[in-house]
This record gives sequence, structure tokens and C-alpha cells, in this order.
Amino acid sequence: MAFIHDDFLLSNASARHLYRAYAKDEPILDYHNHLPPQDLAGNRQFANLYDIWLEGDHYKWRAMRANGVSEAFCTGKDTPPRDKFRAWARTVPATLRNPLFHWTHLELVRYFGITDYLEESTADSIYDRAGAMLATEDLRVWGILEKFNVKALCTTDDPVDDLGFHQQLRDSALETKVYPAFRPDKSLRVDDPASWNAWVDKLAAASNAEIRNLAAMLDALRKRHDFFHSLGCRLSDHGLNTAFADSCSQADAVAIFDRARAGKAASADDYRKFATFLMLHYGRLDAAKGWTKQLHLGAYRSANTRKLAELGPDTGFDSMGDWNQIESLGGYMNALERENLLPKMILYNVNPVQNYAFATMAGNFQDGTIPGKIQFGSGWWFLDQKEGMEWQMNALSNTGLLSRFVGMLTDSRSFLSFPRHEYFRRTLCNMLGQDLEAGLLPDREDWLGPMIRDICYGNARRYLGLDGV
Amino acid sequence: MAFIHDDFLLSNASARHLYRAYAKDEPILDYHNHLPPQDLAGNRQFANLYDIWLEGDHYKWRAMRANGVSEAFCTGKDTPPRDKFRAWARTVPATLRNPLFHWTHLELVRYFGITDYLEESTADSIYDRAGAMLATEDLRVWGILEKFNVKALCTTDDPVDDLGFHQQLRDSALETKVYPAFRPDKSLRVDDPASWNAWVDKLAAASNAEIRNLAAMLDALRKRHDFFHSLGCRLSDHGLNTAFADSCSQADAVAIFDRARAGKAASADDYRKFATFLMLHYGRLDAAKGWTKQLHLGAYRSANTRKLAELGPDTGFDSMGDWNQIESLGGYMNALERENLLPKMILYNVNPVQNYAFATMAGNFQDGTIPGKIQFGSGWWFLDQKEGMEWQMNALSNTGLLSRFVGMLTDSRSFLSFPRHEYFRRTLCNMLGQDLEAGLLPDREDWLGPMIRDICYGNARRYLGLDGV
Amino acid sequence: MAFIHDDFLLSNASARHLYRAYAKDEPILDYHNHLPPQDLAGNRQFANLYDIWLEGDHYKWRAMRANGVSEAFCTGKDTPPRDKFRAWARTVPATLRNPLFHWTHLELVRYFGITDYLEESTADSIYDRAGAMLATEDLRVWGILEKFNVKALCTTDDPVDDLGFHQQLRDSALETKVYPAFRPDKSLRVDDPASWNAWVDKLAAASNAEIRNLAAMLDALRKRHDFFHSLGCRLSDHGLNTAFADSCSQADAVAIFDRARAGKAASADDYRKFATFLMLHYGRLDAAKGWTKQLHLGAYRSANTRKLAELGPDTGFDSMGDWNQIESLGGYMNALERENLLPKMILYNVNPVQNYAFATMAGNFQDGTIPGKIQFGSGWWFLDQKEGMEWQMNALSNTGLLSRFVGMLTDSRSFLSFPRHEYFRRTLCNMLGQDLEAGLLPDREDWLGPMIRDICYGNARRYLGLDGV
Repeated sequence: MAFIHDDFLLSNASARHLYRAYAKDEPILDYHNHLPPQDLAGNRQFANLYDIWLEGDHYKWRAMRANGVSEAFCTGKDTPPRDKFRAWARTVPATLRNPLFHWTHLELVRYFGITDYLEESTADSIYDRAGAMLATEDLRVWGILEKFNVKALCTTDDPVDDLGFHQQLRDSALETKVYPAFRPDKSLRVDDPASWNAWVDKLAAASNAEIRNLAAMLDALRKRHDFFHSLGCRLSDHGLNTAFADSCSQADAVAIFDRARAGKAASADDYRKFATFLMLHYGRLDAAKGWTKQLHLGAYRSANTRKLAELGPDTGFDSMGDWNQIESLGGYMNALERENLLPKMILYNVNPVQNYAFATMAGNFQDGTIPGKIQFGSGWWFLDQKEGMEWQMNALSNTGLLSRFVGMLTDSRSFLSFPRHEYFRRTLCNMLGQDLEAGLLPDREDWLGPMIRDICYGNARRYLGLDGV
Repeated sequence: MAFIHDDFLLSNASARHLYRAYAKDEPILDYHNHLPPQDLAGNRQFANLYDIWLEGDHYKWRAMRANGVSEAFCTGKDTPPRDKFRAWARTVPATLRNPLFHWTHLELVRYFGITDYLEESTADSIYDRAGAMLATEDLRVWGILEKFNVKALCTTDDPVDDLGFHQQLRDSALETKVYPAFRPDKSLRVDDPASWNAWVDKLAAASNAEIRNLAAMLDALRKRHDFFHSLGCRLSDHGLNTAFADSCSQADAVAIFDRARAGKAASADDYRKFATFLMLHYGRLDAAKGWTKQLHLGAYRSANTRKLAELGPDTGFDSMGDWNQIESLGGYMNALERENLLPKMILYNVNPVQNYAFATMAGNFQDGTIPGKIQFGSGWWFLDQKEGMEWQMNALSNTGLLSRFVGMLTDSRSFLSFPRHEYFRRTLCNMLGQDLEAGLLPDREDWLGPMIRDICYGNARRYLGLDGV
Repeated sequence: MAFIHDDFLLSNASARHLYRAYAKDEPILDYHNHLPPQDLAGNRQFANLYDIWLEGDHYKWRAMRANGVSEAFCTGKDTPPRDKFRAWARTVPATLRNPLFHWTHLELVRYFGITDYLEESTADSIYDRAGAMLATEDLRVWGILEKFNVKALCTTDDPVDDLGFHQQLRDSALETKVYPAFRPDKSLRVDDPASWNAWVDKLAAASNAEIRNLAAMLDALRKRHDFFHSLGCRLSDHGLNTAFADSCSQADAVAIFDRARAGKAASADDYRKFATFLMLHYGRLDAAKGWTKQLHLGAYRSANTRKLAELGPDTGFDSMGDWNQIESLGGYMNALERENLLPKMILYNVNPVQNYAFATMAGNFQDGTIPGKIQFGSGWWFLDQKEGMEWQMNALSNTGLLSRFVGMLTDSRSFLSFPRHEYFRRTLCNMLGQDLEAGLLPDREDWLGPMIRDICYGNARRYLGLDGV
């Protein structure tokens, strides 16, 4: 029997039945990822398995480095793609129990029908067979989106982006709805005035305005928010160490803005104040338009500054922070709630120790206006695996409503990651099937079936309110 | 088969045997709850299922809000009880995997013999049937206590309370022993002088004394402690973000007291100092009388200040803090231990990330004078469910002595919560049965049986030393 | 069937097969423990079961105290060994679900062939039978090392130690390689100048130098590092609350040194600065010689200062801290990495909440030079049990490479602890066997078998590079 068989991850009859009857055929709504809009608009064709699979995958690079593979075979510009692929293939058997082992073989079979194990002896054959298939229409970007029944997806975009590719996509024949998401992380960094001023200048250009004072910046951000909205954006996103809940008056914010605009780095305190000020601004914008705000909290980024200098960010040198999160997260949410301007939110934590605290925090701001207004988001980054997903769903189940969960997203930079939804759905159905046969869930398929469908697709569809979905 | 059947939660033959032979028939000693003394003294009869079940249950309200139910149907004063009950019934199927689903159906069957699922279609029938039964003596408060074999229970009381209802209870025909517990949280809040002074004035009145200086306050507290003792109180309790272990001289405490008494809010530092000072005072009082001190640490309370203003505290807007706990907890315990005045203590944490740290902290202060002198308390609040209880018992087992555990308490405001003890006992026996059949426990029923009985009742009985129990 | 039988901890056929075929017969490389070099060099013969088993075992004392056993029967100098043993025997049945119960019976059977349960009624018989066997050569220290196939072990030594026993061992007939490890914790404590100066004086004596300035201290430390190296030392070790990553210039360090040498206690800030400075020095020394640096982080030590004063350190009054660890750990590693002088490292955390954060931190500094350069170390102290080991291996598996794990060490002060390796191996094989039969691992024994062998022995052998191993 193949390693990835029909019952993969489904450990009893109930799990198998629930998966097949309710999860398997639901469409995909991938509401948060890092897919390149250019590749989407251009219906990219990939030259080989390296380009589509390893080109930007820091998960794999981390595994390779841990396996003693030198950097040349991970990110090396001068190493031929096939050689880098071989180095990855040699590492695969060393990844037993790491999610990469599951993902790798799930992706090989779902995209290429390849059921061989990837290892040194199969590397070339797999590279060649997959390469041939990548030359067909079926495995160009649009073919992939159709193959996986992706109804809609949301990329991650800087407010200064002109969204040119999204405009192309809107006018294209692609059936999948593709929308941007608004991620203004760079706007906060008054502690790094060189980068910040460069960014503010881009913002000025993007909004056809001069930005000489804080009011102009806020206005420019509002214009970009409007523009993103006009292209179907309904989500914002923030990647932060912690939320911000410092007290910052208008006058404080003006002063910090002016100093930073003049090139003077904000102190740590002033950075937090200014970030609070802007995050409240963003919260109000989102609330006014019915958007959903995503907070991705707690990543310890670019830990290895030597590698950062050599290879740039997002190359596999990030991990989990252990900052205290709750007072600032609660304070931020409460500040918006006090104004009755708390938008829908999805809270993601990178460190699993925060699961229960985040899941219960969500409960403090459920207000009965819509089901699951505040979401405890799916297992993120390192937690995007069986144990991590189970922990997230258990925390949510025990302290909130699993039935209202908006479910999975890939968070991926790769077009080979759509089977993560399948992986999630199998994990979900396995949990429910185990509970059912243990008598922990009632024998009420009329409840369980629709709940599964909702978690796979329906909840996200209704919750996010994306146009045409 | 009914959802709540004889083997509910008991996954193998050993678990079922242990539960029936050793756990099922043990009495209940509910040593910590928030039952209203007035209802106990008055042998309250409840008008309907709403009054006894939903009236004060913020767990249910949180679930309803998360399900998109508007506040009017949760806490709304003007909404008829039956309509609020229907809104809850509609929410029940959305609570799959939340402990509310288990509790709801366990309570329906144990109190009312109702085995139907609660959902929209059964709501009225269940409301009416239960309502009829509530009109009988069997389901008045005293009937319930007899039905569940509650040998003793301890409420939670403010030191300024006159304990009038407890005096009535002492002289009543009720067989269950009912005792107060001493919870002086308000005494610490010199950072909120308006509330604090009002409370100190009540303390003065309760103790027939003027409180113009710190010494008078300490003396008044001692008198109240004596008075509580005279009514059988043997437990104190403190609900705190963290323990307190700041250094505070007598002179510091006097100065902080005087300023607060004069209406000046203590700084954050002074608040911690004063709280340390008083907590040491309470520790000494407890040690001197052989009481048990409970610390409930880490709740992030009243996160949503808009709702707090609208609905008051304890209405479902609390969650888990993530404050660092260990230095202050260890420092506080050590300060008392240094004086050889560390009382028996039960440590409860609301955030499960503290389980192992709390369980090992308890071990630092076991002194061989009595078994399990320092207890790592049962899963609290959001952790009062299968996963949370298992985690607590695993942490305790792996780093201390499960056999000396004083076990479960309801912590509830509702007279329908006594089946939580059954839920706990089934969970305990299931864990032991699983371990036994996996060969992780020895086949020594002569050890396991008495251990189970002790955890259900005997340990708490011996440990707490309540009069007549 | 005996409690400790052939299939103990091995819950399915695959687990049993993997254990027997690949784990059972691997040698032991116990690369971190606290065995007394004197006992090793002298081939100590133990007078009785108390001396070899309870004499220094704070795990057992904690359990006894929690069981209500008075200190006289734990550490009491005047209590006869047999009486203390009986007190322990009475406590054993109270340790159900604590790892002590498993360890106790595993050790009785592996060393003495005793399959009785230890309890009050068997205490004397076991004491006598074991005592008779301890009088034979087989259960002197060298006999034990041979019996358990210990190829090499590393003790824990102060840099000022003359390593006289290690020199004796080097020249002895013992086949097990015994090496020191370099643990300079005392060198950092400029906040406690009395102890620190006494230690610096010993360092001066050990290195035949005067230490009047910082440069002399650094030089003396380098000499001791060289000397340890000459006796086969290839590991350093640090037991710290947290890592250190403060900024400390050479001038700062000189000033702090001078003040401390003059008897003035460093402030908390200066202590951290100086500790950072020295820890970087140690890191560079280790990197230069290819050593492996171990960091044991997060223990909350000597919580009970009354007992510390009575009984001294390491007597069972330590527990888990909950300090934030990541910024200082990441900062320390990055500071060395920036100089390209980051040695191989093993990161141990005492609080399981840090598992995922530590495991992912390791990944930030894998550089492809050797497999598993940065290790997330095996479950430490309170985590050295089934649940703790499983958590550690799951965290490592999900975020790194289990296949490159250097595996188990006893960390023990007792010669009866070598079966901890067996306990670990059974736990490992049980996990793998369960995954295999659940279809989570591929049916590739050609991968799994060697991986198991490597985790048991081969990885540590290759990674540590101990001479002659």
C-alpha cells in the first residue's frame, strides 16, 4: 500500500466516513498566503521541480542545514537546480516525523501522481517525471488552482503596492477569485527611520500626496485602504512580536512622526506608542469597512544576523518568541472595543504555549453580532502540522466553538502547498472520528457533517464576505 | 444507547471497574465554590430551568455570544426566561467538543432523568419537564445536596460578610456541613482608594472598631478571621494576577495605608508592597489556625471594559493571563516558610502553561509534616474539562504524588454543577484504567482502589480538617 | 507477569521489534552526569542499598516529604540507613504514576534481579538481598559500567578541580572512557563577591598564576580549558536561570572585575554584563577546540532558603522557573555566530513550556557544517520521564530532525541510573512503533533501524568526538 493512501491520517471508520462524506470535496478558500501576485497574473509555468518546490521554501532549507547540507545546496545561486534537488532528496529520509516528510509525499502524489519515496536513489527519476508534467497546462498556476478547486485566495500585500497584478487578475479569465490583503508592517517602524522614510515616500507616491505630517500619512493610508477595498480586499494582516497597547496621544504621535520623518530614530517607548497609534487607526479602518484583521504574533525573526546579511529575510532563521502577549493583546482589542470599533479579528500565535490564552482572549470580545467574530486562528508556521493543528483545535474546542472556526489557510509561498488543506481536513476528521467512537461526541451526523463542511469552507465564506464567493 | 451512559468517559474494562468499585459511591466534599449562602440557608426552590441553570452562568453566555446570539438573549433583563433558554438550546449543537456539551447532558440526566439532546426542537419540552420537577422538594437546594451525597461544602465569602446565612445553616436541619471561606481580595486594593476605603469602612463596622491606622486594620482582619473560624471556616482564598513577594517594611506599609486611607491611590509599586504585606499577614493567620490557603493565580479579568460597565464583573469577559508567576509565588511561599509559618496551601493556575512549574513549586515546600501539605490544585475555570483535568493530573503525577491529591471542587455558582465531581472521577478512573491496561501501573488493586477513594473524598476530608466531616 | 517485563512500555508489535532489533543492544554513551569521579576512580563498593540508591537522591526525598515523611528519614544523618530505606519503601506505593515508581522497579530488576514490588512488607528482604549482591565485584562501580556496556561517560567538573581522579582513571584498567566536563558556573557570580573571590583564588592556585586583573582571569580560564582538553574533555556546561546577552565592553568588564575583586558586589545589571562577557569567552574557547557547549536553562534553584540553610543545595528544593528565555538565548548564540565562533551546542530547558521555542531556536543556527550542530537536548530533570521525553521528541521531530538527535543522558548522581537509557529507548521505540502502525511513518525499516541506533548511540559518538570512542 502506498504511504499516502486513501485512509492516510484517518484512524478509524468514522474518521474515514466523515472525511469522505463531508470534507474531501469541499472547495478551498485560501484566505491567507504569500503567493506571488505576478505568478498568479502571469499563469506561471515552472521550469522544473526545484523552481516550484524549493525555490523559496525555508522549511526545507532549515531541514537541510540541520542535516549537514551546506548552504550552497540550499540557497546557493550558482548550484544547478538539479543538484539542489538531489541534496533535498538525500535529506528526506532524515525528516522522519517532521511534517516535511508527510507534505513531500502528499504533494508528489497529488500533483504528479508519484508514489515513490523521495530519496537519493529516486531523486533524478522524480525530478524528470515531475519536470515533464510541469511543462503541461495542467500544472501551470491556473491549472493548479482549478485542479484543487480553489474558489478564492488572498495574497499578502504592502499598502504601497500598486496591485497591478491584482488588477490584471480581476480582468482575467481565471475563475479563482484572487484578492489582496493589506499588510502595513513597515509603516510602524519609526525606530528605523531610514527604511521607514523610504517607505513613507513610497506611500506618498502611491497615494499621489505629499506626506509632511502625520495627518497626511493617516490620510494616505486611508486612501490605500480604500483602494485595496476597491480591488476586493477584505482582510488586513500584521506580523508583530506583540500587539501594542501603549497610551499615545495625538500630540505624542505627531511629535514622534515629525522626529522620525526628520531621520531621528524613535526610542523603544516611542516606537510602541506610535505603533499603538497606527494600529488603532488600522483597526478603525477595518471596522468601518467590515474587514477582518489578522494578527500574527510572536515570531522571533532574523535571529541569525550573519545569515540575514548574507541571505536576506525569510530564509529560515526565524523561530518562536516567548514574549508575554496577553496584556498588550487584550489592551489593544479593548481600546477598539471601547470605541465600538473592534473589527472581526483572527488571532494567530506562533508559540503553542499561547494557545489557551489566545483562545480564551477571543471569547472576551465575542459580541453576538456574528458567529465567531473573534477567531483563534489555525496552527501557524511551525504549528502547521498534525500535533500543532490538534492542539489549536483542542484549545479552541475546549474554550470556544470549534463549529464556528474559519479553518485552514496555507500561509505558503508555494503553489505546491494546497494539499495542506487536505492534511488539515484529514486531521480534523480524524479527531472527530476518534471522539465519536470514544463516545465523546454524539452520534448525530446531522450535526457533525455540516460542522465539518463549515470548517472546511462555509464558515470562511460567510465570515470573510469576499465578493463573488 | 444514550449519550450519557454508564460507561461514559470510561474507555476500557479496568476504567469501568475502578470507577464503579471505588469512585462512584464516594461522598462529595466540595471545598471551593461560589454557591450563594442565601440559597443554601433558604433551601431555595427554583422557578424554572433558566433560573437554576443559566441565571449566572458566564460559560454559557460566552458560548452563546460566540455563536452569534445577541446579549438580550444571554443576560438581557427584559427577555423572558423561556426565550433565553431557547437561545441556549439553539447554541448547544454548536458546542460540540466544548465541555458545555458534556456538562449539559450530564446535568439533564442526573437531575431530571432527561436523556434527550438539548436543541431547538427539544427546548420547550425539556424546559417544561424540568420545570415541573423543580417544583418538587427533591430539587430544592437541600434535596439536591442529599441526592448528590454532599457531605460538606465551602462557599466563598468576604471578611466583612456577617455570615448570617452561615449562622442559620449551622443551626438548621441540613445534614450537609456548610462552611464559609475567607476571601479578602478587596483588602489589597490600595491602588483604588475609593473602593478600598468603602471596604475598610465595612470591615470596621463588621469588627466593631475604628480603623484609623494599619494596626487597627490588621487587628480587625484578625478578628474577622477568628469569627470565620468560629463558624467552621478552615480555608482562605485569594484571586490574584500573581502572588506578591515585594519587600515591604512595617513603616512602608503604614505610609501606604495612611495615604490610601486619605484617598490617594497607591502606585503600582506601592500596591505590590502593600499586597505583599497583607498576604504575609493572612499567611500567618492561616498557619496559626491550621487553615488551608488557596491561591487562584493568573486570571486576566474584565478584559472588555465596555461590557464590564454594562454588565458588571463575572459576566464572561475574563480569560487567561500570561504573567510570569514563579518568582513571586516562590518568594511569597519562602517568606512564610522562613518564619516557619507557611500554612497548607493549594495552588491553582488558570493558564495551563503553568502546570508543571506550579506542580514542581509545590514540591519545594513539602515538609513532611502532613501528606501533600502543598497541593497543586485541580484544573481551574477553563481547565475544568477532560483535557485540562488530564493535564493537571499528569503534571502532578509526574512531578509529585497523585495519591495525595485532594481532588475536585466545582468552583461553581450553580446547584446543577455537582456532576462535575462525577465527570472528574470518570476522567481519573479512565486515566488509571488506561495506564493499567498499558502496563504503566501495577496490577495492585489494593493500592489503586484506596488511592481512588482518597482522591475522590478521603484526602480532602483528612487534609482540610473540617469540623464534623 | 512481572511488572517490568520484556515488553514494558512497548505497546505494539512494531515497537517491540524495533526495540529488540535496534535499540536494546546499543552501547551507552552517558555524556552528561554528576557521578563522583572519586567513586569512579576508586571503583567504589557500596555498603548497602541506601548508600547506592538514596544517599544523594533528591527525587526520592521530595516524594517522601510529599508523602508526609519527616526529614529525619529523608536526609537525617543520625537515622540508620535501613530505617531510611524502610521509609522510602513505605512511600513507593504512594508514587503510582510518578516516574520513581517505574525507575525503582526497573533498577531493582536490572541490578539485582529483584521482581518484587518495593513496599513496607518487602523492604527488609529487598534491602538484605540487594545488600548481599552489592558485596560482589559485579556491583562495584566498574562492574556496573561493564554490565551496562557504558562505552564512555562524562562527569561534571569545576575548572578549579585538579582532575586528579580523572588522571587516575586515564591510567587505570577501566575500559569505559571517563572524561570531565567543564562547568564554570561559579566564575560568573560577581554579585556574590565573597564566594566569587574565594573561587577566583582557587582558580589562581589551579593555574599557577596571580589573578589581579581580568586579563589574568581569562588567561587562567583558558589554561584550565586547555588542561581539561588534555584529559579528554570535549563538553562544557552551564546551569543558568537564563542565557546572557547584555552588551558589555572590555572596559565594562574590567571595571566590574576590579570592583568585585575588591569585594564590592556587582549590581544585577553588572552581573548580567559580566556574565555575558565571560560566556562569550567560554563560547570562543569551545568553538576553537571543537567542544560542545551545553546550556541548562531555567531551573528555579533553592526556593526554600530555610531548607537551603539546613541541608545545603541540591537537596530537593529546586523547581521550574518561568523566565522569558528567548531573547537572551538568541542574543547569546547570535553574538557568537556573528564572530563565526558559535560552537556546537545542546540546549536544555527545565520547563516544558519552552520545548517548541528551544527546538525552533536550534534551527536558526544550523549551518550545514555538521548534522545537528545545535541540539535540542533530551528531557531534563523533571522532564526525564515518559511524558517529558515524548514532548521533547515531538517538539524536536515537528520542528527539526529527530534523526540527528544525540539522545539520552542520565544527568544522575547515582550509579543505579543507567537503566534510564533503557527507559528512554523503550519510549523512543514505542513512539516510532505507534507512528508506524498508524501509518504516520513509512514502512522503511532500512531508515528506521539505523535512525534508532543513531539516536541511542551513533549520533552522540560522532557528534561529540570523544577520544577513543
